[in-house]
Amino acid sequence: MINIVLVSHADLGDALIRAAEMIAGQAEGLYSISLLPGESPESFGEKLEATLQGIESQETLVLIDLFGGTPYTAAARQTLKENVECVTGANLPMLLELVMARDDATLSELAMETARVGQESVKNLGPMLRK
Amino acid sequence: MINIVLVSHADLGDALIRAAEMIAGQAEGLYSISLLPGESPESFGEKLEATLQGIESQETLVLIDLFGGTPYTAAARQTLKENVECVTGANLPMLLELVMARDDATLSELAMETARVGQESVKNLGPMLRK
Repeated sequence: MINIVLVSHADLGDALIRAAEMIAGQAEGLYSISLLPGESPESFGEKLEATLQGIESQETLVLIDLFGGTPYTAAARQTLKENVECVTGANLPMLLELVMARDDATLSELAMETARVGQESVKNLGPMLRK
Repeated sequence: MINIVLVSHADLGDALIRAAEMIAGQAEGLYSISLLPGESPESFGEKLEATLQGIESQETLVLIDLFGGTPYTAAARQTLKENVECVTGANLPMLLELVMARDDATLSELAMETARVGQESVKNLGPMLRK
């Protein structure tokens, strides 16, 4: 099973997991690393490293809240490892897709698919619904 | 000032606000309506309606967690009002853009810009960083 690690400012990653589990039920292999107010980049990086080392699976997809900033900086360098992929712009449709699709895809396929779903999930409703 | 209302499963909207304020500082005119586990669509719709009626500003952008589901269904019908726009796929870059750009745009421009930022914020880092 491909593990999913959310990295975020404050408790955004935890809340994404709570929302996804409200829809799809409890899921295994979900982790969230939160940058706390005032926390140093070093401390955050250590928490991420410890989580990745503690995961038994060889394959991990890291879902990052924002391109840039402390969580991104710590996570992006993990992409150099063979068994880690990272996708930015974390939202609920992306996490749901990850939970539902991870058993039927390779890690690199899953990263591409998650990015595609994330981009397509963003819709400006006014022009669609008022046509 | 254009108000921003997040509608979400569980406390995802609250967590997005906490994360955005950690980066951009405290902001006014941010509201979050959470669908609680087991809550009825009617109850959620009433909470959203009460929040929108309580907002003094005539203009509101509703940021929805997911296309489909109870928060979406209650919010999307608000788009028929002239002073409301809705965008789905809520993530942190979209909320930051809303907070920073809302003073310099019309409501419909802000909705388009938020959707553009949301789509562009989703990036699969592996193919970019391992080039």
